[in-house]
Amino acid sequence: MAGTAPGDWAAGSLAQCLFAPRAVALVGASGDPARASARPQRFLAAHGYTGRVVPVNPARAEVLGAKAYPRVTDIDGPIDHAFVMTATAQVEQALRDCAAHGVPVVTVYSDGFAETGPQGAALQARLAGLARELGVRLLGPNCIGLVNPVDRVALTVNAALKADTPAPGPIAVVSQSGSMLGTLLSRGVARGLGFSRMVSVGNEADLGVGELTDLLVDDPATRTILLFLETLRDAPRLARAARRAHAAGKAVVAYKLGRSALGAALAVSHTGALAGSDAAVDAFLRDAGIVRVEMLDTLLEIAPLLARGPAPARSGPMRGAVVTTTGGGAAMVVDRMGLQGLAPAVPTPAFCAALAAHGVTVRETPVIDLTMAATPDRYRAVLQGLLDADFCDAVLAVAGSSAQFEPRLAVEPIVAVAGRQADPARRGTKPVAVFLAPQADASLALLAGEGIAAFRTPEACADALGAFSRWTGPAPSAPTPAAPPCEGILPAGPGRRVLDEQRSLALFDALGIPTVARRVLPADADAAAIGRAGDALGWPLAVKLLSPDLPHKTEAGAVTLGVANAAQAADAVRAMRDRVRTHRPDARREGVLLQPMVTGLLEVILGYREDPLVGPIVVVGVGGRLAELHPDVALRLAPVDAAQARAMLDEVRGLAVVRGWRGLPRGDVDALVAAIVAIGRLAVLPGQPVAEAEINPLMVRADGVVAVDGLVVLEPRDPDAGR
Amino acid sequence: MAGTAPGDWAAGSLAQCLFAPRAVALVGASGDPARASARPQRFLAAHGYTGRVVPVNPARAEVLGAKAYPRVTDIDGPIDHAFVMTATAQVEQALRDCAAHGVPVVTVYSDGFAETGPQGAALQARLAGLARELGVRLLGPNCIGLVNPVDRVALTVNAALKADTPAPGPIAVVSQSGSMLGTLLSRGVARGLGFSRMVSVGNEADLGVGELTDLLVDDPATRTILLFLETLRDAPRLARAARRAHAAGKAVVAYKLGRSALGAALAVSHTGALAGSDAAVDAFLRDAGIVRVEMLDTLLEIAPLLARGPAPARSGPMRGAVVTTTGGGAAMVVDRMGLQGLAPAVPTPAFCAALAAHGVTVRETPVIDLTMAATPDRYRAVLQGLLDADFCDAVLAVAGSSAQFEPRLAVEPIVAVAGRQADPARRGTKPVAVFLAPQADASLALLAGEGIAAFRTPEACADALGAFSRWTGPAPSAPTPAAPPCEGILPAGPGRRVLDEQRSLALFDALGIPTVARRVLPADADAAAIGRAGDALGWPLAVKLLSPDLPHKTEAGAVTLGVANAAQAADAVRAMRDRVRTHRPDARREGVLLQPMVTGLLEVILGYREDPLVGPIVVVGVGGRLAELHPDVALRLAPVDAAQARAMLDEVRGLAVVRGWRGLPRGDVDALVAAIVAIGRLAVLPGQPVAEAEINPLMVRADGVVAVDGLVVLEPRDPDAGR
Repeated sequence: MAGTAPGDWAAGSLAQCLFAPRAVALVGASGDPARASARPQRFLAAHGYTGRVVPVNPARAEVLGAKAYPRVTDIDGPIDHAFVMTATAQVEQALRDCAAHGVPVVTVYSDGFAETGPQGAALQARLAGLARELGVRLLGPNCIGLVNPVDRVALTVNAALKADTPAPGPIAVVSQSGSMLGTLLSRGVARGLGFSRMVSVGNEADLGVGELTDLLVDDPATRTILLFLETLRDAPRLARAARRAHAAGKAVVAYKLGRSALGAALAVSHTGALAGSDAAVDAFLRDAGIVRVEMLDTLLEIAPLLARGPAPARSGPMRGAVVTTTGGGAAMVVDRMGLQGLAPAVPTPAFCAALAAHGVTVRETPVIDLTMAATPDRYRAVLQGLLDADFCDAVLAVAGSSAQFEPRLAVEPIVAVAGRQADPARRGTKPVAVFLAPQADASLALLAGEGIAAFRTPEACADALGAFSRWTGPAPSAPTPAAPPCEGILPAGPGRRVLDEQRSLALFDALGIPTVARRVLPADADAAAIGRAGDALGWPLAVKLLSPDLPHKTEAGAVTLGVANAAQAADAVRAMRDRVRTHRPDARREGVLLQPMVTGLLEVILGYREDPLVGPIVVVGVGGRLAELHPDVALRLAPVDAAQARAMLDEVRGLAVVRGWRGLPRGDVDALVAAIVAIGRLAVLPGQPVAEAEINPLMVRADGVVAVDGLVVLEPRDPDAGR
Repeated sequence: MAGTAPGDWAAGSLAQCLFAPRAVALVGASGDPARASARPQRFLAAHGYTGRVVPVNPARAEVLGAKAYPRVTDIDGPIDHAFVMTATAQVEQALRDCAAHGVPVVTVYSDGFAETGPQGAALQARLAGLARELGVRLLGPNCIGLVNPVDRVALTVNAALKADTPAPGPIAVVSQSGSMLGTLLSRGVARGLGFSRMVSVGNEADLGVGELTDLLVDDPATRTILLFLETLRDAPRLARAARRAHAAGKAVVAYKLGRSALGAALAVSHTGALAGSDAAVDAFLRDAGIVRVEMLDTLLEIAPLLARGPAPARSGPMRGAVVTTTGGGAAMVVDRMGLQGLAPAVPTPAFCAALAAHGVTVRETPVIDLTMAATPDRYRAVLQGLLDADFCDAVLAVAGSSAQFEPRLAVEPIVAVAGRQADPARRGTKPVAVFLAPQADASLALLAGEGIAAFRTPEACADALGAFSRWTGPAPSAPTPAAPPCEGILPAGPGRRVLDEQRSLALFDALGIPTVARRVLPADADAAAIGRAGDALGWPLAVKLLSPDLPHKTEAGAVTLGVANAAQAADAVRAMRDRVRTHRPDARREGVLLQPMVTGLLEVILGYREDPLVGPIVVVGVGGRLAELHPDVALRLAPVDAAQARAMLDEVRGLAVVRGWRGLPRGDVDALVAAIVAIGRLAVLPGQPVAEAEINPLMVRADGVVAVDGLVVLEPRDPDAGR
């Protein structure tokens, strides 16, 4: 078909059969126009599909004017792609028929699978296994299909296709929500945006977001890939695809639900997916170089801002300069740019002098306000000047009511300087975002057509600039570190197990993280034994009961601090035993742990966790007993290297003290960095047996760090659950 | 004129002459259509003004077809409102002419006043004084005028009026940004919204946001008042107007710039206004019952959501229920509702059973998803059910692609249940917010016309629901407390002065806040004297140098903690003197302060401050030396009563410890509340001599609180600067 190209998109390839099939079978097609199962045939015809369309319906000889076949196996001639709309119970037979007829790609619209609960999930697993066995690729189930405006393929039940034929363009969409495909299509069309391919993934039993993104990397018609995500089902695959996209000069942008606990709970109930942490998803997307946006409008509007790739490396925040013909309009964006961490770009005296020659008076503020002095020449001169200037990294161009009635005043100068026909050398590499204050649909479409990032709301504009400012492309792939020497430390065996503090600290020792001195005595140790151990460690002591059943020892009354001598220690052990026996009679008591009291400049919490969506992560934040009240942490995919660990420390506000603040003594940053790197190496232990590991507190001192308390949870991977 | 009503809007009133003048003079009117000064005459004619329009231009006998007069005093007949567009230097004469001719209201479009700097500000002060003296009310200067669609008065230079005549409606706009008036007008018109009056205030030399809001409270054509704010110039006046608006059943909504430091700095440079704190502005708006929104769209869209007033008092967060025909579309709003602090409203079994009778299967989640089962009857049944149900406080209704092509499926049921024609008794008092996922302009306009809050973006929808959930109307006016007995404590005299710690603690003593025991010795006290004082207080001690020049004693090296005996104390004093002498040779040394070391459960920071925009405020947060790194505070206008103080404590996350958390001992909440109330009473000291007062730390113990360190800054008010 016209528009598709060779390479991985060659005739007979997965991409071609999926997105641009030469012949499609509509299995379960209805002739009743009121039914959703009649839509694909109508939409294909209405939007100019030029391939063969074959309805499959055992009850009818003809559907909507086309000859119908009882089964796929009855069709005379090859079929690239079958769209299955039968009852749930008939889907497997349809799949077998497709395989028998040599159909390489099957989209299953039918529902009743994983989205309905465990029984449906089992049915879906069987369907996926069958497809694998038969060598058929599956999109769905519970999938509303896809739209390919480049090749005029509307193979979908999405009601949004009742509208005019969407224009082709360079934006591809992969959506985990079927209805959002229609939402993005209708909103994009209204803004004059064109799309290359739009695909809904349904339950992702086979083809998932990662593999589809990978296909789009090689798609000659696609320049930007937008993802609407409810969960992540194939994070590593998506990360690889995003890295390939970056290498190919294509940006990947994600709108991901689950920012709030309420949203996350809904996503879990809606998709049947696991609940990961939003911060972990953030770290994953950043690591893969995927741009995350906060607003729906931004997802549609941001593409041109990313067309030239991430900004060159810089120290410090991105500096934004602004030219405007409306003070209030610019101020709305600038206010939120500040919330996004952008800094003002203040014109230099030389710049002001150069513009004075154009009759433009520029004060040394980040906003050059031409409200009272706007002419097309002046607007053009200021904008070009900002693109050429050294004092700013990004430019915001704002237009007031002229955008509605008199585009020549500001909108056309923007096009002349930053649009497609502008001299690429003069246009430079600096990103330009445009905000139009009034309702100005024609100007928005003009700018979009010129490949300029134009925004309808000040909030989406600032969201896009913030996302761009944080975008650095994929994190450099560091060499995988050697696995830490943990043989013999971790008890073998299946299932989830909590290690007690002594065994947890032993693991941190093995990782090379300094741990507090300590002695473990039997649970029934007498006062004399405790006294001897205490004399060896040096009083005062922290005295704790060891039990794998008491991960939160303080709350369980199993910790006594500042114990001054043997008698006090014996009393403390007795009192703790009584408390635990009363409140947690089931708790195993495996011993008594004695540690000297440790002080430091700051208590840090250092953690490692297997996130169910994105895999192993490392977290560092301010520790102590109030850590949960003040989430102020940095998070990365594990393992991390020293540079990443150092960057993490810069992100935690409360760690400013470690870095030196207000004349307070500095902590040993190198030792803290080494500890972060060390805990991250749990990710490369064969079989990833550690599900969670947490040091709280890790005392940071002027000369080193010490792990004072810790907790490790083991949960060896099911060897069948490959990544 | 038709549309205006009697009362304060009677003929000859300020409101009538301002908004609906029977005759206007256009002073400095130009006949050149390219010039802004030609616009008012053209706009008045184009939009159907029926009163008399008189151009005033000494150089021409006729302007745009109308007879022109050399001066206002030459006009035959009365003028209600003059619009002055002359050069800056001619404005005063124009004002005198208006007064001489009996013109009661003058709008000054001319610029060159306070927005240009101190010289312009002086000019403006003189202009305002002249207007007062002449008995003329002034709008502006630097004001683009106003639009009154009800009476078809377009007395403005705003280019947005080049569009079709805006429809009249119940929404009034008061804007500190002239260009934003056009932005709101054009965006509102595109959404099918109607406006009553839209006024730009310019530099507010006379008529300000507060007084204009007050006029609109009595305006029969206005039901909701929208404010676009860059600063606050008359906070008390605005608060009074907002309280009157609430009593009249009219909501006041504000979009206020200055959320970020970058935005605040821009507002200061743009408006020449003082920089207040955004948190203080938040407290002010909440206290006055003004709804603050975060997004531009929300400002235009929220009005119908507020029409029934604030929600009834409830304990706990607002519970939102959702009905939708698109899972992804609803999830976008719900995710952000969670960020706004709303809780899920989970249907009861009885509710689910009742809907089963309509063929609707409802699971016990906050989102009732009809995607696969939508019919008009079912949508109506679910929405009505939610309005009648006890388990939710607010309802979100979402529609997918049907909103674009088939409004009968969801949009029309929403209209039937929640629109104007619905039975008011059945419609109930519960707010309904609607989000339409696709581009669906006609449906948005239909809903707006029906008085239903309909939102174009999921973010604005959640912003509106969040703003509504926090809205409780104006704070109850507590009786003003008696002034605290501070006579003799505060040194008299003009100018800004910092009190040393001893004098600061004396003020807190006078307020009734317990302070740490202490002794003050002369700066040159010897070891023996220090030892005697220390023995009396009890070792160990904190030893500090007293100086009004060292407000940050710790950073200046003027504090030594944990001093164990007289010898150590003498050494510490000597070392501190040496440090201060080296680094701050200019610092006065007024004495040595000795205090016993004080411990507690938690360190709190308790502050009082005169905010330049909103006046006295009280702040409470987690204290200690890291307080500035972790802004986690609650803030209220001062004075506060005990109930307000208690509510403040609930807002500070870090104070969870005081309220009892994880088995840690509880703090003395009553004593902390009393301290908050006490410091707030500084606001009623005659002359408000205290500009700043801060206790850091206030130690919270199980049995009381103790102020350990504090700082007071005096700055008696200029007696001319009335409120």
